Amino acid sequence: MTATSIRTEDPVFALHEGGKLEVAATAPLATPADLAKAYTPGVAEVSRAIADDPSLYRRYTWVGNVVAVVTDGTAVLGLGDIGPRGAMPVMEGKAALFKQFGGVDAVPVCLDTTDPDEIVAAVRAMAPSFGGINLEDISAPRCFDIERRLDDLLDIPVFHDDQHGTAIVVLAALRNATRLLARDMSGQRVVISGAGAAGVAVTRMLASAGVADIVVCDSRGVLHRGRTDLTPVKAELAAETNPRGVTGSIADALRGADVLVGVSGGRIEETAVAGMATDPIVFALANPTPEVHPDVAHRYAAVVATGRSDFPNQINNVLAFPGVFRGALDAEAGRITDAMKLAAAEAIAAVAADDLRPDRIVPSALDPRVAPAVARAVASAAG
Amino acid sequence: MTATSIRTEDPVFALHEGGKLEVAATAPLATPADLAKAYTPGVAEVSRAIADDPSLYRRYTWVGNVVAVVTDGTAVLGLGDIGPRGAMPVMEGKAALFKQFGGVDAVPVCLDTTDPDEIVAAVRAMAPSFGGINLEDISAPRCFDIERRLDDLLDIPVFHDDQHGTAIVVLAALRNATRLLARDMSGQRVVISGAGAAGVAVTRMLASAGVADIVVCDSRGVLHRGRTDLTPVKAELAAETNPRGVTGSIADALRGADVLVGVSGGRIEETAVAGMATDPIVFALANPTPEVHPDVAHRYAAVVATGRSDFPNQINNVLAFPGVFRGALDAEAGRITDAMKLAAAEAIAAVAADDLRPDRIVPSALDPRVAPAVARAVASAAG
Repeated sequence: MTATSIRTEDPVFALHEGGKLEVAATAPLATPADLAKAYTPGVAEVSRAIADDPSLYRRYTWVGNVVAVVTDGTAVLGLGDIGPRGAMPVMEGKAALFKQFGGVDAVPVCLDTTDPDEIVAAVRAMAPSFGGINLEDISAPRCFDIERRLDDLLDIPVFHDDQHGTAIVVLAALRNATRLLARDMSGQRVVISGAGAAGVAVTRMLASAGVADIVVCDSRGVLHRGRTDLTPVKAELAAETNPRGVTGSIADALRGADVLVGVSGGRIEETAVAGMATDPIVFALANPTPEVHPDVAHRYAAVVATGRSDFPNQINNVLAFPGVFRGALDAEAGRITDAMKLAAAEAIAAVAADDLRPDRIVPSALDPRVAPAVARAVASAAG
Repeated sequence: MTATSIRTEDPVFALHEGGKLEVAATAPLATPADLAKAYTPGVAEVSRAIADDPSLYRRYTWVGNVVAVVTDGTAVLGLGDIGPRGAMPVMEGKAALFKQFGGVDAVPVCLDTTDPDEIVAAVRAMAPSFGGINLEDISAPRCFDIERRLDDLLDIPVFHDDQHGTAIVVLAALRNATRLLARDMSGQRVVISGAGAAGVAVTRMLASAGVADIVVCDSRGVLHRGRTDLTPVKAELAAETNPRGVTGSIADALRGADVLVGVSGGRIEETAVAGMATDPIVFALANPTPEVHPDVAHRYAAVVATGRSDFPNQINNVLAFPGVFRGALDAEAGRITDAMKLAAAEAIAAVAADDLRPDRIVPSALDPRVAPAVARAVASAAG
């Protein structure tokens, strides 16, 4: 039996034969009269009207409903730098989720360059074709600069999902975990393990939401003002966080902490978790291997969440990005502001708030109520 | 009544509300099991397999069926340089035609630059996302350089439809017109009015098909070796054509000519047409105003064709591009060669060859037999 025939019999590979997307026409093209309206000569009137009055662009094209899912393939899932072609099945899946949950048409754009200048130039050039740009699986720290530059250059929303999608869902989950435990979220001592795309965004999002005591760790330990080995982004984080001036390892950071958010892919020892405050909250989000196995975390924690679908409380970006872009497109927003992200998090939390349990602090990834609620909240915050 | 309400009541504008395309998922996403196959964790296996063995890329993604329809909006229909946003309704229509006639998924990419270097860089960067690049409505002479550079850089087909689509259908029409009139096509004296994208490509295509005596005119008259005002591309054409050393105006060129192919948008006087050989063939393809009105042409010509759907013998690119890309994608061709273009023209001609009449030298634009026949011929010529 060849490798190919094994793949064909594998249901995952069988499902991927020919890919997971198609482009369909929404206007009829069966008769000469159809052609004369949807194509020449009729289409010329529409093109001329848009050229004369650009405010008609979104109304008479599909652009107001289309998002590009852009990657350079450098940080794909847990696979790392597998290149633009290896990334495509993931981007197709993302596009399918955009449609399924947000009614957003999404086009995968896998770029044959990892140079930030070239990525920015290419996305800037293609930007008129889209109503929004979802950056995906671009490695840190390059992702920060690329997103900031595009956000400045373009008049459509730019959203790096690995950063902000994760941050939104983490905030929603922490809101509900503290609600369930009747604690004041802003007073929690929070440790973030990981200072990559997700770690940076989660830190800033929680700070925006009022959490005052956040300590961030990278693979070498706590980020503090005395560290001389930090990238510019990490140095900024060190300056913005760690009000008690903690130093040392993640175990030092976790001593007495109320919340652990793992977005690192590293492993955290049980003894470090044991040193946390009583009944802590542990979000161990690395995929496929959580920083702390949920069984271990449950020995200490009052609430445990992971990134995996086979444990309760899955912190899944799909709770955020379809509704975030649906709302931003509906509002014709030029960017996705902090207020819109905070509104998205509160909307996700609210869907699960009626029936909070330790194993149900966030809605299911398939809950059809989530994206419309997020979209409404985001559009309202954009207004 | 406002301009907007007038537009809403116009059936063409009503049809264009929200655009003419959507992206749909072809894999189910309704259950956790669906998600686990189409997205994480299942998709990681497929991504890793492609990263390890790039030959699996087309099989397990949609890329083998997707073409980018790329424009900078500089030469849109008869409207000229209306920019990328004005161009979008045309590109959406083109994409809809790709799907309807070729089963090809096509994505409009309207670029916010007219700089050839930036266009080449952007298309090169996004190329892994597509199985082919259809360049559209890019003005001459920039289009020649852009196409040549992309064709050299990329390992997927690059096809400027305004050039080669038009040339393929003109050759098909001339093949059948001469067949109908029992003439040897290669011996015809042909005058091409227009030395832009279509004029250059039609000239080269007819020369490839064996036509020996071609005279090309631009707005200043006949291209000949003595002209000192020619762009490099026109100078090449002057060197390759005009074996009898004709000089002067288009009327001079047409004196005694057997075939006129108008791809200029200019107007040609009746007296010039009257000077052609007995029973000439006149293709007046400018839209919406043919170089010679068909009623005038019919006073002299044995066969008349236009680019318009409201006269017989419409020379419409839709006869070519869906089948050309269908065939190239099916064959996984790395480029579209002259042999593939010639095969496409012969296939289009063959569909109409059984029942040739002066008002039926090409199939209808809606004839469902055309694209599959073209696709088979193109794929075969690629092999």
